[in-house]
Amino acid sequence: MRQFFSVCILALPVLATAQDNLLQYVHPMIGTQRMGHVYPGATSPFGAVQLSPDTDTIPYEVNGKYNPDVYKYCAGYQYDDKTIVGFSHTHFSGTGHSDLGDFLVMPTVGELKLNPGVASQPRSGFRSAFSHATETAEADYYKVRLDDYNILAELTTTTRVGFHQYTFPASDQAHIILDLVHGIYNYEDKNVWTYVRVVNDTLVTGYRQTSGWARTRTVYFAMTFSKPFYQYGARKYDRRQAYHGFWGHFDQNHNFPEQAGRQMRLYFDFRTQEGEKVKLKFALSPVSMEGALLNLRTEIPGWDFEAVKREGQAAWNKELSKVQIDADQDDKENFYTSMYHAFINPTVYMDVDGSYRGLDQQDHKADGFVNYTTFSLWDTHRALHPLFNILEPARNADMIRSMLAHYQQSAEHMLPVWAHYANENWCMSGYHAVSVIADAIAKGNTPSNDFANQALDACIATSTRRSFEGLGAYIDKGYIPSEQDGVSVSSTLEYAYDDWCIAQAAKKLGRMDVYAVYSKRAENYKNVWDPSVGYMRPRLGDGSFRKDFDVLTTNGQGFIEGNAWNYSLYVPHDPKALISLYGGNKRFVQHLDSLFTMELPDKFFAETEDITRDGIIGNYVHGNEPSHHVAYLYDWTDQPWKTQERVRMILKKQYGPRPDGLGGNDDCGQMSAWYIFTALGFYPVAPGSDQYALGSPAVTRASLLLENGKTFTIETDNQGDKNVYVRKVTLNGQPLTRHYITHAEIMNGGKLVFYMSAKH
Amino acid sequence: MRQFFSVCILALPVLATAQDNLLQYVHPMIGTQRMGHVYPGATSPFGAVQLSPDTDTIPYEVNGKYNPDVYKYCAGYQYDDKTIVGFSHTHFSGTGHSDLGDFLVMPTVGELKLNPGVASQPRSGFRSAFSHATETAEADYYKVRLDDYNILAELTTTTRVGFHQYTFPASDQAHIILDLVHGIYNYEDKNVWTYVRVVNDTLVTGYRQTSGWARTRTVYFAMTFSKPFYQYGARKYDRRQAYHGFWGHFDQNHNFPEQAGRQMRLYFDFRTQEGEKVKLKFALSPVSMEGALLNLRTEIPGWDFEAVKREGQAAWNKELSKVQIDADQDDKENFYTSMYHAFINPTVYMDVDGSYRGLDQQDHKADGFVNYTTFSLWDTHRALHPLFNILEPARNADMIRSMLAHYQQSAEHMLPVWAHYANENWCMSGYHAVSVIADAIAKGNTPSNDFANQALDACIATSTRRSFEGLGAYIDKGYIPSEQDGVSVSSTLEYAYDDWCIAQAAKKLGRMDVYAVYSKRAENYKNVWDPSVGYMRPRLGDGSFRKDFDVLTTNGQGFIEGNAWNYSLYVPHDPKALISLYGGNKRFVQHLDSLFTMELPDKFFAETEDITRDGIIGNYVHGNEPSHHVAYLYDWTDQPWKTQERVRMILKKQYGPRPDGLGGNDDCGQMSAWYIFTALGFYPVAPGSDQYALGSPAVTRASLLLENGKTFTIETDNQGDKNVYVRKVTLNGQPLTRHYITHAEIMNGGKLVFYMSAKH
Repeated sequence: MRQFFSVCILALPVLATAQDNLLQYVHPMIGTQRMGHVYPGATSPFGAVQLSPDTDTIPYEVNGKYNPDVYKYCAGYQYDDKTIVGFSHTHFSGTGHSDLGDFLVMPTVGELKLNPGVASQPRSGFRSAFSHATETAEADYYKVRLDDYNILAELTTTTRVGFHQYTFPASDQAHIILDLVHGIYNYEDKNVWTYVRVVNDTLVTGYRQTSGWARTRTVYFAMTFSKPFYQYGARKYDRRQAYHGFWGHFDQNHNFPEQAGRQMRLYFDFRTQEGEKVKLKFALSPVSMEGALLNLRTEIPGWDFEAVKREGQAAWNKELSKVQIDADQDDKENFYTSMYHAFINPTVYMDVDGSYRGLDQQDHKADGFVNYTTFSLWDTHRALHPLFNILEPARNADMIRSMLAHYQQSAEHMLPVWAHYANENWCMSGYHAVSVIADAIAKGNTPSNDFANQALDACIATSTRRSFEGLGAYIDKGYIPSEQDGVSVSSTLEYAYDDWCIAQAAKKLGRMDVYAVYSKRAENYKNVWDPSVGYMRPRLGDGSFRKDFDVLTTNGQGFIEGNAWNYSLYVPHDPKALISLYGGNKRFVQHLDSLFTMELPDKFFAETEDITRDGIIGNYVHGNEPSHHVAYLYDWTDQPWKTQERVRMILKKQYGPRPDGLGGNDDCGQMSAWYIFTALGFYPVAPGSDQYALGSPAVTRASLLLENGKTFTIETDNQGDKNVYVRKVTLNGQPLTRHYITHAEIMNGGKLVFYMSAKH
Repeated sequence: MRQFFSVCILALPVLATAQDNLLQYVHPMIGTQRMGHVYPGATSPFGAVQLSPDTDTIPYEVNGKYNPDVYKYCAGYQYDDKTIVGFSHTHFSGTGHSDLGDFLVMPTVGELKLNPGVASQPRSGFRSAFSHATETAEADYYKVRLDDYNILAELTTTTRVGFHQYTFPASDQAHIILDLVHGIYNYEDKNVWTYVRVVNDTLVTGYRQTSGWARTRTVYFAMTFSKPFYQYGARKYDRRQAYHGFWGHFDQNHNFPEQAGRQMRLYFDFRTQEGEKVKLKFALSPVSMEGALLNLRTEIPGWDFEAVKREGQAAWNKELSKVQIDADQDDKENFYTSMYHAFINPTVYMDVDGSYRGLDQQDHKADGFVNYTTFSLWDTHRALHPLFNILEPARNADMIRSMLAHYQQSAEHMLPVWAHYANENWCMSGYHAVSVIADAIAKGNTPSNDFANQALDACIATSTRRSFEGLGAYIDKGYIPSEQDGVSVSSTLEYAYDDWCIAQAAKKLGRMDVYAVYSKRAENYKNVWDPSVGYMRPRLGDGSFRKDFDVLTTNGQGFIEGNAWNYSLYVPHDPKALISLYGGNKRFVQHLDSLFTMELPDKFFAETEDITRDGIIGNYVHGNEPSHHVAYLYDWTDQPWKTQERVRMILKKQYGPRPDGLGGNDDCGQMSAWYIFTALGFYPVAPGSDQYALGSPAVTRASLLLENGKTFTIETDNQGDKNVYVRKVTLNGQPLTRHYITHAEIMNGGKLVFYMSAKH
């Protein structure tokens, strides 16, 4: 493993002493192979620009059929690929659905090629061969040699600007291609419109409007070169050329400053000396070309690539330093790479002056907060936002402000479900924004009491939108009839948990009428429990349980991303009651044990999205979030040592400092947040409560440097790979007799000591 | 004729005494049959909204082939059609190219139909039969009964808002359809994107983005109903539905408030009593939905349809009253309908707060002027803008400000050629914006000397853009080689005239260096004159004239919209020199006479766009602008009486108070402006000079009420249909011995008397 990342370790000359330099443990390459769906390129903490190499350009359809490879390329990069098509400016981190890939830039020399070519045919287009041997991926820095052109490409960013540095060979035919056809999740009609204006021989502005996963999305740009191009041109690939005059008033393909259409690529030509660096700054804006220019000039006025890289990496080091751990090298790399992945999303979504495009497709100014987007809430409400409530409380409060703004702009009067770039994607189930809000309220992390009440009102409005998936029936019957909804059980369970969150927030705010209503709704999970089989089960409108039912498969069973085995354990807000449904402690423990140990038939793997034999432990699927709290449920039984054993085993099996080191999609940081909490020894089983269930720390020692100036320290006694069991825990010197700690105990600072043992 | 328009005349109860009511002479229906390309619907003077019935919806292509009928429907309405598809909010007036037709609204009752159907099959869709018997078209008011539904539809407007009043029968199934698929010049890919937000049960906002004739165009709207709809829905017709969630989180086709896609229609349902009026206000904005709402609430706060109509018609009466004429009924109808058509374009292009989208696709605020668009300058520089310099000097100055703003936002650094809605369409030849600017400078009608100099700088920059059609070669060689350009001769001639305009402006501003350069360029017309044949003729790069050359046909002869016969007379700025090219007075007169009297072979009509046997007099084509000055050229010969004879004959032959009363496209008011000038007895042969050539007035008497408070009166002695010859002219009592009057003589007020005779 060392070997693998040696390049990265050597590549940090500009940074401070290795001791406080935590960047050395960050390997963006982790998770770029197979399932992780993360990208290796450059980005700033929560940055609006994610500037990263795309190793292929995948058509959404082949011969009119969906192309399953699209899924592999959610982040644009696959470690096993041999060519790079170019460097695009927007990427999701770890998602299971894709979009973005805007503004692909590619430097080339020699004959001008404007077709990307195909991976199977070397030099068939402008793409270039590359090898990992000449590739470096660090926090906010990426470097690679483009072998076909002998061009060294380096990338770094600020929040809103991508900074490219290309070292060219000597050439009279040096090109920089701006590919506006390229995109991720790229079906034929994705590109809605593109406009480009060549302002002068170093400045180009424009916008790109797409309808991909985000239905109505426009990104504006301003791009400036460190050296004037001596000529430029455009090529269009539209089904029909947009009307723009006749009898050739102008040659509009060559040195013509105004281009528009659906599908186009531009090129800018230079003459370069051997080793000459041509630099390129590329700024994005959600509202206008002027906004992009403002961002460009504000964030990177000069051309000092090294300085921008240094500042970007310093910003990362500051974020990483919020947790200082002692652990072995592998664990440190897993831990700090998880911290890196956790602090990428949500992403900043406004210009430096606060301007952003709202969900109502009108322009707004963020008043007194930073507006964020990329809310993958079905994933991130579980552990990522709770982690922010400890390490990033100010940002988390702004994320909630951003969700409130989304709510106020929503034609459906709902909080975000899966939102990015002024769009609601209606992806996955539940209304988990309420969990994020309730968790912040429970932990006293909202701007004001008024704000908290407004936020609660938004939660109530969202949870009473009867036309939303099955919600009307859920409100009337206490469950979603399976005739109405393919995922009736998981949605019912998730609504019940979300309703409990609303109840907790209401209680905290002294709104007992709301508390009463939602406490009752929180018990709706019971309505889909079939005691005759001991599973949550699809239920028909007439109250009877559906006959055909397979507890192992997911498809058509009333669940999403989880089968009955896993989802039946989804009552995070009341494990005690869940245990009694299962018939008490003994039978519940047996059930959990079987989950982690059973052998699954092969057909299961064929059928279940995202799941491989490594991605699963028995029938426990760590790659899919509905199970993330499950290993901690033993804490509510008489065998909490099994939580300790399981979580340590999951840490080892599902995470590793290798390109294939993520057992599933990182899901905008949720998988990483699970790692961070678990490695520290505790986990938020039910966000919305102020408790964290205790597990078994993987670190030897950790200090959390909190925004309030206090420090919370986790120490271990007799830590070791085999010593996964917790004999005793003390908090500030006093024995802790319960299996949880509270948020207040963390935020007050102090010391939590785990006494480890090889035996339980 | 009376009969035909009787409906209109009866339909003016709300207006003041017939005596000052000039609206009675305005018949928007004139020119709606065949070639006029005008629309009969409602619009305000220079209004941004042109709310008019579309009688068919014409696909741009049929089986992949261009559909020539598209041309007939430039204004959406053809008099001979039997059905109305609906009422859309934007229309060109008299153009020879098409676009617009945005936001078609159609009221229906009974079964909901969302397909427009076809004209040949009654009731095949939502379109309705109608008859001219129940149709009324007035300035800013249109009324028709939709026979299939027994709905009375009435339309009026303010500058930025269309006001619909629908009188329904009793129905439980009353619908108002908003068709966002419909458009004029409507090829499959024209619709780029559409967004609709149902804000509440009376308010809907959104936008429509098209790439038609205008390449990158977005129009925003806000639409409000006088009565809440009880349900609504949308239907999409996209090749592919835009992604918007899965597992039916919502039923997005019914009562779902947020719609987006490329092709969609919406419906809004009501229950109506017999005779119940449902009203609808529809506001447009070039920049935002908020802007449209602002326009809506500012211009029509209430629901009083009659009051809005009354104000709109009063505004028209005010414009029409600027010229008071005595003439017979037909001439009055021709005259005031010409005034009406002349005051429709250019159109206001900004919100009430001055916001508009610039040519640079960024939003701007018009600072201290009204921003206009729809510049059909190849047509309108000839007589329409000169007419504005007399009757609408303030507006004309703002139009020039708008052209300067266009220039400042132009990536090509050029003044508009054919511009509308933040787009340059590069349509037709020349750079005639310089003629409009020079004419205003010559006539002292620019805001300031500084402004005039800026405007001149813009003219110079435009005329030196070497990459613009043949201009580089023109500058180097003094003509455009015919190898380079299919319209090399007409462009050379037009550049020469435009250059003369620049010279005149420079002289007036004391910039004699510029005057010298452009006075020389102004003589370039001589470089395409072939003395061996006595015609302007395509010339090759080597200086020789092109061998194959046919003086009658247009196609491929180096001309646009005019053959060698007509275009060879295009030296408006120096008729004297032109006459000597022709070999002097006698031979020139013979040439002109033949032009007006020769018999043309049939093949000519087959080949020549826009030309029918009625549209032509001999070989003189009044329907195409390059000839508009030709009849006045006799003034420079010893037989000016032939100008008098010809122009009176053209007035009679080419204009009439009938649906087919326009001999050719009105071309945004140019044909009408020719009528107005000629009927008054003078015409601006060379805009850029301060002279108007004298003709033969068709009116008995006319008073021009000028903005400066003065009145210029034209009187005739012994006027009559046969008395077309002018025996004598006096100006303010003094005999006028020249064949022109000056702009100053008009603007100083006074009296011009024509002494008419049946003999010359």
